[in-house]
Amino acid sequence: MIKAGVFGATGYTGYELVKVLQRHPQVEITFATSQSFAGQTLAAVYPQAPQLPLILGEEAPLDGVDVVFLCLPHAAAAETAVRALKAGVTVIDLSADFRLKGADTYAAWYDKVHPAPHLLADAVYGLTEFARDQLRGAKLVATPGCYPTSILLPLRPLLTSPLPITDPIIADAKSGTSGAGRTPKAGTHFIQVHNNFAPYKIGRSHRHLPEIEQVMGWFCPEAPTLIFSPHLLPVERGILSTIYVNFSEAVALDEVRPYFTKLYANEPFVCLLPEGELATLAHVAHSNKCVIGLTMAGNTLVITSAIDNLVKGAAGQAVQNMNAVFGIEETAGLI
Amino acid sequence: MIKAGVFGATGYTGYELVKVLQRHPQVEITFATSQSFAGQTLAAVYPQAPQLPLILGEEAPLDGVDVVFLCLPHAAAAETAVRALKAGVTVIDLSADFRLKGADTYAAWYDKVHPAPHLLADAVYGLTEFARDQLRGAKLVATPGCYPTSILLPLRPLLTSPLPITDPIIADAKSGTSGAGRTPKAGTHFIQVHNNFAPYKIGRSHRHLPEIEQVMGWFCPEAPTLIFSPHLLPVERGILSTIYVNFSEAVALDEVRPYFTKLYANEPFVCLLPEGELATLAHVAHSNKCVIGLTMAGNTLVITSAIDNLVKGAAGQAVQNMNAVFGIEETAGLI
Amino acid sequence: MIKAGVFGATGYTGYELVKVLQRHPQVEITFATSQSFAGQTLAAVYPQAPQLPLILGEEAPLDGVDVVFLCLPHAAAAETAVRALKAGVTVIDLSADFRLKGADTYAAWYDKVHPAPHLLADAVYGLTEFARDQLRGAKLVATPGCYPTSILLPLRPLLTSPLPITDPIIADAKSGTSGAGRTPKAGTHFIQVHNNFAPYKIGRSHRHLPEIEQVMGWFCPEAPTLIFSPHLLPVERGILSTIYVNFSEAVALDEVRPYFTKLYANEPFVCLLPEGELATLAHVAHSNKCVIGLTMAGNTLVITSAIDNLVKGAAGQAVQNMNAVFGIEETAGLI
Amino acid sequence: MIKAGVFGATGYTGYELVKVLQRHPQVEITFATSQSFAGQTLAAVYPQAPQLPLILGEEAPLDGVDVVFLCLPHAAAAETAVRALKAGVTVIDLSADFRLKGADTYAAWYDKVHPAPHLLADAVYGLTEFARDQLRGAKLVATPGCYPTSILLPLRPLLTSPLPITDPIIADAKSGTSGAGRTPKAGTHFIQVHNNFAPYKIGRSHRHLPEIEQVMGWFCPEAPTLIFSPHLLPVERGILSTIYVNFSEAVALDEVRPYFTKLYANEPFVCLLPEGELATLAHVAHSNKCVIGLTMAGNTLVITSAIDNLVKGAAGQAVQNMNAVFGIEETAGLI
Repeated sequence: MIKAGVFGATGYTGYELVKVLQRHPQVEITFATSQSFAGQTLAAVYPQAPQLPLILGEEAPLDGVDVVFLCLPHAAAAETAVRALKAGVTVIDLSADFRLKGADTYAAWYDKVHPAPHLLADAVYGLTEFARDQLRGAKLVATPGCYPTSILLPLRPLLTSPLPITDPIIADAKSGTSGAGRTPKAGTHFIQVHNNFAPYKIGRSHRHLPEIEQVMGWFCPEAPTLIFSPHLLPVERGILSTIYVNFSEAVALDEVRPYFTKLYANEPFVCLLPEGELATLAHVAHSNKCVIGLTMAGNTLVITSAIDNLVKGAAGQAVQNMNAVFGIEETAGLI
Repeated sequence: MIKAGVFGATGYTGYELVKVLQRHPQVEITFATSQSFAGQTLAAVYPQAPQLPLILGEEAPLDGVDVVFLCLPHAAAAETAVRALKAGVTVIDLSADFRLKGADTYAAWYDKVHPAPHLLADAVYGLTEFARDQLRGAKLVATPGCYPTSILLPLRPLLTSPLPITDPIIADAKSGTSGAGRTPKAGTHFIQVHNNFAPYKIGRSHRHLPEIEQVMGWFCPEAPTLIFSPHLLPVERGILSTIYVNFSEAVALDEVRPYFTKLYANEPFVCLLPEGELATLAHVAHSNKCVIGLTMAGNTLVITSAIDNLVKGAAGQAVQNMNAVFGIEETAGLI
Repeated sequence: MIKAGVFGATGYTGYELVKVLQRHPQVEITFATSQSFAGQTLAAVYPQAPQLPLILGEEAPLDGVDVVFLCLPHAAAAETAVRALKAGVTVIDLSADFRLKGADTYAAWYDKVHPAPHLLADAVYGLTEFARDQLRGAKLVATPGCYPTSILLPLRPLLTSPLPITDPIIADAKSGTSGAGRTPKAGTHFIQVHNNFAPYKIGRSHRHLPEIEQVMGWFCPEAPTLIFSPHLLPVERGILSTIYVNFSEAVALDEVRPYFTKLYANEPFVCLLPEGELATLAHVAHSNKCVIGLTMAGNTLVITSAIDNLVKGAAGQAVQNMNAVFGIEETAGLI
Repeated sequence: MIKAGVFGATGYTGYELVKVLQRHPQVEITFATSQSFAGQTLAAVYPQAPQLPLILGEEAPLDGVDVVFLCLPHAAAAETAVRALKAGVTVIDLSADFRLKGADTYAAWYDKVHPAPHLLADAVYGLTEFARDQLRGAKLVATPGCYPTSILLPLRPLLTSPLPITDPIIADAKSGTSGAGRTPKAGTHFIQVHNNFAPYKIGRSHRHLPEIEQVMGWFCPEAPTLIFSPHLLPVERGILSTIYVNFSEAVALDEVRPYFTKLYANEPFVCLLPEGELATLAHVAHSNKCVIGLTMAGNTLVITSAIDNLVKGAAGQAVQNMNAVFGIEETAGLI
């Protein structure tokens, strides 16, 4: 059994992670932390949660675990990672702290000096399907952001193809409000969200933009610019990204699909829909899948890509990464 | 033209009031206050609101208005009422401060010493349909609570009838979340409310209970006990109260309906549904009506009573009261 | 392995049942039927469903299964039950066909002559917690209705107690719209439901009333009359019943709780909340639990009782019953 | 007073139109038709509607009205238009029948032979802000589709500008479900929509595509191709279109805004947001406004454009057109 500790168990991501880990046949949760609810159990926060005792992060017994998951605010995550790595514990980080390779980029987008820049180079960016080799035995894994996961998985086959993509690629993304976290704010007040639909930080201003472009650059050094527009949906969970990839000349859908099937035909968590079908949130709620639909319109490929932001976009992919790190069945706990 | 000032214009009730007053042919808004948004306009808070400048409450020019509406937290309302009355201005209070006649009861339920107990006796409890005589020329009006309005209007015909009501009367009430106000809280976070339905302060523990029982006692000194159970609905606005009145012997619906029609046949804002129809939120959204359905089941009369909590349950009834105070058409601004 | 057939797999109850059975370690699904989608698979109806082939009900191979679940319209269920019983197959019916013991009562409430009245006497009414002895080895089980389950479980301890209950008991119940089925209707159109909340068939007019009163009579021959008012909630799943039990004299909550703890302390699927807590839909979504809160108010006990209408109110309880029939762990597939 | 008849008053668009016309100081409704509810009143369909009698379309007294509004299915609208025009009545059509100028295009997209192709040339396409001259005294007006209105208003200033737009323009649009009409369908069943978000007919396959491209061509003969992707939102009303216009070189937002302010600074129903603000559904619910936000991102202009699909996208614009036809204040009934 893998002994796991969860830092930040009372956020939406932390609770989702606890649920996944509890179903996992080869994991036991050794501790769970919460700065606000220490001394209580997780059931005090979520009515269906188990009576898992919550302790303060600084009191977590790092010597008793094999792996820790960090569902912490950025910067706090990096500080905890340093402590855990020093104790020899594998770190699966779900924050943004180890996603960007450049400390400068991090500082520019996250308004903080990175607490541990020396760790950035070795952190594995855990878009699992494309990081398996590096994940095996890794000590520090950065779980990708939710929007990036929904956008990078469908872009990857195109970016490594010879298809004549023109600049820019446009990703119009819509997320359920659990992505905004558990802290009550004006923008996530029921009345504000319920009969509404609202764009935010569109164009090139959301923190996930540099993350996505960084990884696009790994796949294709001359990758197109990305225009990325997130919107807030009045639903609990799920991200649907509608992605527009323009080609400089006519391309048949039949020429495009093979790049996807080649990479994804045997992937348990990436599902390419039959021609004519479109991805929806209903395809992915509570699952670790990324479901992808392809539609050709003129010289534009319109991709619909859906994930559950709390599962494949966070806790599920984190556990998928843990499975890869420890060399166990990648789907364990996730189907 | 009646010159009106609005204290607390940025809450849901305050904004609803501004909308009603703007449609009112005989009112002009002289000022609107907000402690949090002073210096900005109402449009900074609500995207469809007018560019109404917001000032601090303490800077409101009381000498320039005929009437003020208080959409303030309790206790703050009473303090402002004292100032306004001293300036000779009519006060329509939408808070709970002048609803209860006993300062002790107020202290017990609202955890505050009442700031102006000497005003309680003269404040008119503005359940408009039953307070017209007192409202004419009144200086201080307490607008009833939202739940009380939805429950008292249908109970009134029964309480003054000789029908053999037995103890207790049960009011199972359900409210949209705008009733909980504009301040973000865990309980009104989108994720908390959206796929949920939850009772709160049921039985005899909600602050509206003593208010309802006080008025029931005015109508009928030997009124039955009330059991009152509020619930939070995942909708924006509206209250549906399902009220159970048991009789000690069989009573035909035909014996009951006349008590309602006698009182309400000519009321513009109380609508008795035809036999067999039930009140729903769809009957009343954005209207100043209270819609009532009557169903007999065994010896029990089941009443369905619907209002819009922000209109007939707050801003609409407040304006209806203002109309009565100033002797103008009671429906002005409200149809 | 128990071989199971599912009749009517494409309704909400049928699909929920397939999901439960697929998690069940001792069951395999041998066939699934659908009159509308025969020839396709369940994935054609629900995007996350498995590729389970759908056949016509009349072509179902009854000789290859140990048990069939009937998620069929009433009358159709009884006809299929006759066929299955003749083939020696155990029948777990989820329709209303075998819940009422009287064929006359059935005819009066369901507008049909009962197709198999001779089976009514032997059908076991599967409110599992109170039917275990009869369920063991039973050939025909009627799964209780969703509202009845949410009301009967909390009433049972009271009805067999000496507490001085007075007439009537009032159950004000609110259900998510999945209870209305998958067939598009005006009343379940998105626009009709979304910002609305509506009572329907209140008092003594809903088909679940005779079912509940029948079972109340089994528990207590002199059981009080029931007033039962269902309402439609703008959520997908869940029932919250707020139940009012009046006593003829003051009773302390401490006198009441022991009747519940005695029956339910060790029940895996009935959860009595600590004093002061109220049941909500969030307690039970996607679970087989009935969660119960008790509040004393004057002489009235206010019970909040929550279930997931598709799980404990249908598919989950059906599988719980199957487990009891075959003598396997009652929680198998359900936790 | 203008005497108006409403054909198809019981659909969502028809009812919205009745509400607008009832507020209109210079209009009286002479008749309203419904094929399904003839003999009843509008209040039988919508609980807050007036007791407006409904008659069969074929019995409508065309000689008693100045104008008719057609809220009918396509083809049925054209047939009624022919009758009304013959009777000398002005026709404001809200269907798709007179939007496209080519009978062939109509046949290709609407699967019907056009019932009155001779009328197409003279029908005025009523995107009011750009059709005032033609509207004055017009006999036949085609009210634009909801999506086209939300897309054409913000594109117009660009299409008549010298800005270096490159091909294609992408419009990612999201609509509330009232756009799908009042007829219950699987796709608009509450359960199907509520926790979901789904694209449909994306790319170049929705019927509004040829309409939008036709009008783009009027504004700019060499207009770019449009990629248009509609999505269904779990809200009642409102359309948000996020539109991506790529330039072949860097363009400052300051160069773009003047083209908008020049056209729209004095328009009562087109509102250009200050820089940095984004359009949301909350800006436009229940209003006749189109609210537009502009964001520059790299070489791409990202436009957010919001309307209420039932008002500016249908009934409101229809009345705005009627006002223009009859030469009365264009905002009458609409503010």
